[in-house]
Amino acid sequence: MNFNKIVRGNKRASNTEIDVYNILDSGFLCHVAFQHEQQSMIIPTAYGREEDCLYLHGSSKNFMLNKLLTGQTACIAVTHLDGLVLAKTLFYSSMNYRSVVLFGKAILVENEDEKVRGLQSITEHIIKGRSEEVIVGDKSQLDATIVMKFKIDSASAKIRNGGPGEGDSEIKDNIWSGHIPLRMQALQPVLDEKFGINTGWSESIINFYERFK
Amino acid sequence: MNFNKIVRGNKRASNTEIDVYNILDSGFLCHVAFQHEQQSMIIPTAYGREEDCLYLHGSSKNFMLNKLLTGQTACIAVTHLDGLVLAKTLFYSSMNYRSVVLFGKAILVENEDEKVRGLQSITEHIIKGRSEEVIVGDKSQLDATIVMKFKIDSASAKIRNGGPGEGDSEIKDNIWSGHIPLRMQALQPVLDEKFGINTGWSESIINFYERFK
Repeated sequence: MNFNKIVRGNKRASNTEIDVYNILDSGFLCHVAFQHEQQSMIIPTAYGREEDCLYLHGSSKNFMLNKLLTGQTACIAVTHLDGLVLAKTLFYSSMNYRSVVLFGKAILVENEDEKVRGLQSITEHIIKGRSEEVIVGDKSQLDATIVMKFKIDSASAKIRNGGPGEGDSEIKDNIWSGHIPLRMQALQPVLDEKFGINTGWSESIINFYERFK
Repeated sequence: MNFNKIVRGNKRASNTEIDVYNILDSGFLCHVAFQHEQQSMIIPTAYGREEDCLYLHGSSKNFMLNKLLTGQTACIAVTHLDGLVLAKTLFYSSMNYRSVVLFGKAILVENEDEKVRGLQSITEHIIKGRSEEVIVGDKSQLDATIVMKFKIDSASAKIRNGGPGEGDSEIKDNIWSGHIPLRMQALQPVLDEKFGINTGWSESIINFYERFK
């Protein structure tokens, strides 16, 4: 993996493969920037990771996926917002976050086994264990789905954590300063009532809820 | 405001100005896609909104902000992840979300009063009431900061909520299906200890914590 040069804020740069992979593996939602008629466009979507590739998927008619398959180098960002950093001045206020920016190209996954593996990888990123409980789908559903592999050519990671820096340390005003940690919280799972029966939470649901509640 | 055409998933399209503004006003983190040497790039940043403009800010040396000021049409996405939708098949599994995609151009804010107003707008988006408590900063800090106004030329909103649709209703397998709501949670604010004293939480901190805890 190559690393993008971080020009600004390079004290927060954290360019090791482990950091990039940890940040990718802590999430499942990315934003993809791609080109259409000399215009940058951006779409959020789910991903899974396997080694230095992200799996993306969608309908075979999906505009973005078809644009990505024209051979262009796309740019993908994954951002975890970890907190608000509230210094005594606006200038030194900030956010805590872990983020990666990736450049690479997408390759269509044509092999059916790998297509299923790609879909399972996306599912496992979203909710661990679910891919063993759920029905993957029949051939016509698989045919209607594009799965692609985005190979990471270069990456950069930035991480900020903790409270305000030293920049406002001369300020004598009596203003509360510090940081507020933020996280993704899961609320109580809601049963799909169209089947009329509650089968009880499956293992993946229990584990996800216990972890994020 | 014009609206982007939503080709795929247009049942989830929700193109009214009120929806676009509500989604923008529920958040403060956006992803900006812009062009540099025929390459799409993407960077996350904070924003504030006033009417049909987003305020963005950063260091006067910020690469992205300077690229945005070359007159290009950029694309900005704001995405709120509201839940996992877990159908009995992968094919009908989905996510609940509210998202907007905006196209527009950035204008440099040169007037000092508007510059301060832009910074306050960003702060108020992040944590309401904080801009009245915090020190805005001195002239040298203001000079080192770019504030820009991204005028929304066209927008689209997509919203999905609730449980799985009807697509998997014929599936007899005994698999838990439903949805898991997700939200942003604030943990207990952490005092900046470099000042050695606890001034007590200010009103903005109390209100933010009460709302998101």
